[in-house]
Amino acid sequence: MAVGLGPLPEFAPIEGVRLGTACAGIKKPGRRDLVVVEIAEDAAVAAVFTQNQFCAAPVLVAREHLAATQPRYLLINTGNANAGNGQAGLDDANACCRALAETVGCSPEAVLPFSTGVIGEPLPVDRLTGGLGQAVANLAEDGWALAAEGIMTTDTQPKGATRKLEIEGHPVHLSGISKGAGMIRPNMATMLGYIATDAAIAQPHLQALLRKAVDRSFNRITVDSDTSTNDACVAIATGRSGAPTLEPGTEAYQAFEAAFIGLALELAQALVRDAEGATKFVRIDVTEAASAEEALDVAFTVAHSPLVKTALFASDPNWGRILAAVGRASLPNLAIDQVRIDLGDVRIVSAGGRDPQYTEERGQAVMDCSEIVIGIHLGRGQARESVWTSDFSHDYVTINAEYRT
Amino acid sequence: MAVGLGPLPEFAPIEGVRLGTACAGIKKPGRRDLVVVEIAEDAAVAAVFTQNQFCAAPVLVAREHLAATQPRYLLINTGNANAGNGQAGLDDANACCRALAETVGCSPEAVLPFSTGVIGEPLPVDRLTGGLGQAVANLAEDGWALAAEGIMTTDTQPKGATRKLEIEGHPVHLSGISKGAGMIRPNMATMLGYIATDAAIAQPHLQALLRKAVDRSFNRITVDSDTSTNDACVAIATGRSGAPTLEPGTEAYQAFEAAFIGLALELAQALVRDAEGATKFVRIDVTEAASAEEALDVAFTVAHSPLVKTALFASDPNWGRILAAVGRASLPNLAIDQVRIDLGDVRIVSAGGRDPQYTEERGQAVMDCSEIVIGIHLGRGQARESVWTSDFSHDYVTINAEYRT
Repeated sequence: MAVGLGPLPEFAPIEGVRLGTACAGIKKPGRRDLVVVEIAEDAAVAAVFTQNQFCAAPVLVAREHLAATQPRYLLINTGNANAGNGQAGLDDANACCRALAETVGCSPEAVLPFSTGVIGEPLPVDRLTGGLGQAVANLAEDGWALAAEGIMTTDTQPKGATRKLEIEGHPVHLSGISKGAGMIRPNMATMLGYIATDAAIAQPHLQALLRKAVDRSFNRITVDSDTSTNDACVAIATGRSGAPTLEPGTEAYQAFEAAFIGLALELAQALVRDAEGATKFVRIDVTEAASAEEALDVAFTVAHSPLVKTALFASDPNWGRILAAVGRASLPNLAIDQVRIDLGDVRIVSAGGRDPQYTEERGQAVMDCSEIVIGIHLGRGQARESVWTSDFSHDYVTINAEYRT
Repeated sequence: MAVGLGPLPEFAPIEGVRLGTACAGIKKPGRRDLVVVEIAEDAAVAAVFTQNQFCAAPVLVAREHLAATQPRYLLINTGNANAGNGQAGLDDANACCRALAETVGCSPEAVLPFSTGVIGEPLPVDRLTGGLGQAVANLAEDGWALAAEGIMTTDTQPKGATRKLEIEGHPVHLSGISKGAGMIRPNMATMLGYIATDAAIAQPHLQALLRKAVDRSFNRITVDSDTSTNDACVAIATGRSGAPTLEPGTEAYQAFEAAFIGLALELAQALVRDAEGATKFVRIDVTEAASAEEALDVAFTVAHSPLVKTALFASDPNWGRILAAVGRASLPNLAIDQVRIDLGDVRIVSAGGRDPQYTEERGQAVMDCSEIVIGIHLGRGQARESVWTSDFSHDYVTINAEYRT
């Protein structure tokens, strides 16, 4: 059950980007599990990938293809991650790229492959390539909603976001989709995310912006502390809006950057809202840290604590678990009497213990909400960071215990 | 339900150590929740404590008392951790020490307090001190089994171990008890553990041996990656066996050290066997690491992965999750084609992918067992380390969601 996740937006079409889908029967029949994205020849394309050292075959191939030539197609399948498959996995990923290249008439290097699903099972290449004709046949600029559905794994809802802004009198659009509900602690990358815009921006600037946006969005979320083998996020800028090319340092660039990062954050938060078994959507704000690194360390230590997460599931204001998690983060010489901890707008900890004004009733009122903010003020400096996470429920165990059945 | 945890052993009494218990009604009436341990005047006493910076009031007081004078009594309560209680917590811990000191006629500094239970609720000092008379009245050398019961929290079974060896013709005994089932990832310390021996050993050597034993036992286990605010482990050597004083470097010392570490490991493993909701007892062996640190990092990354732990609960040989966890550990320049992973005696991963000999049936046969060994061979060096952990079940969520109700 997703927490506060609305229906898909009305995606703004992005001129120069067409999306097609198919039900290829990769894991189960009758499920939309194949997505092809066509990118105009002159678009800028940027990408970031998982830092997991056992990264999947499609990640290795996509990196290589991206370095070799201008990408024209993204080929995305769900139902199988093509990870942990050794040389056979690489051969399979390349075979799929070749098949799409032959269908559409481009070089195999112009195809970037992406896979998500079970690790360690051979990719069913024949079933995947069997769906390519259908996916290519229905390529369309308004294919975003079906594509959002076509990349889902344990997601209960498709996820997307869209923005419109004006740059020097020209309307500029951004549309994006994301997927992922578990194995989410991206590390300098993300789960699958695809963002396109009709703005014009040079590839190196787009790559830098994507990295910055990912760092502020997908790298600030965690469900279960596990980093996937297949994480990837792609940005496409087609330049078809007619607006002048964006240059860093300008006001127009800043407005675009804000819209881009806002859209990435919406896509990232959607993953947490739909986290496996989630009943709570939780933001952890750490302030007054000596550095951003230590703020993030405290925030992730609290966000990963199974004891904090099960207390959140139970709506139990068991704040001692938050305090214990803060205490085991790697903060040298923490002056615990300087630390204050809030649940929503209720102060729970001050001066090393329970705040004198705190009552169980006030804590309970906050915990009963489905969206909760935990504020941790360290009294050590000026740095602040936020991360987003979910709770740990029976359904999380059920979903992950029965994932392959 | 504990995994392979037998009944308590026949504890060897330790001359110079007497244990008494009481039902003080600290959290609930009718539960054995108070333990007093009397230590002979001339015994050596050593201790290690949690590294959690929000350590509990009794930890602060015990450290202070240990530095001030020779300990004569341990005062242990369950049902309340007296943690996160600020100055009031310190006052309460000191009041309990004074009350026991008055009852038995020693200085308050000769009492070391230990508490375990809920964090952040005031210690019910009156109920605790009300039970002291009863606990002191039944102090006895054969009080080990009742003491093992009296320190339990969410433990389903009491835990203890005992050893006997001969040193230069003299029989020497060790007995120990431990408690803990969740919030277990000790950090240079342990959950509550108490080990006594009638061997003679100077205090500095006992302290060094305890630290070494804890590092090889309690610091090699994890249930949920959370480090408690109250962890403590105490060693007592009364010297009453008549055997000569142990000197490091001698054969007798080595035999004693082996027995002591073996007993600590048995106590630590008992915690994992009885971990909250555990249905599996899992050892993770990491070999061929470049250093002990990196072996431990890989082992704990796998042991903490909620996805690995839920797959273990489901008896699902979803080895891709093990591979993904290894891949997100902090190993610079991991050559993934050198990594081999085994489930029991079944090789699952070689050359960066599924081993050619692997079949789902063979993996399933291992996963169906309640005791499982995961072997991870990194191909980077000679270091090896083992850690022990449990799986992640519905009962874990239930126990921790309903802990305070």
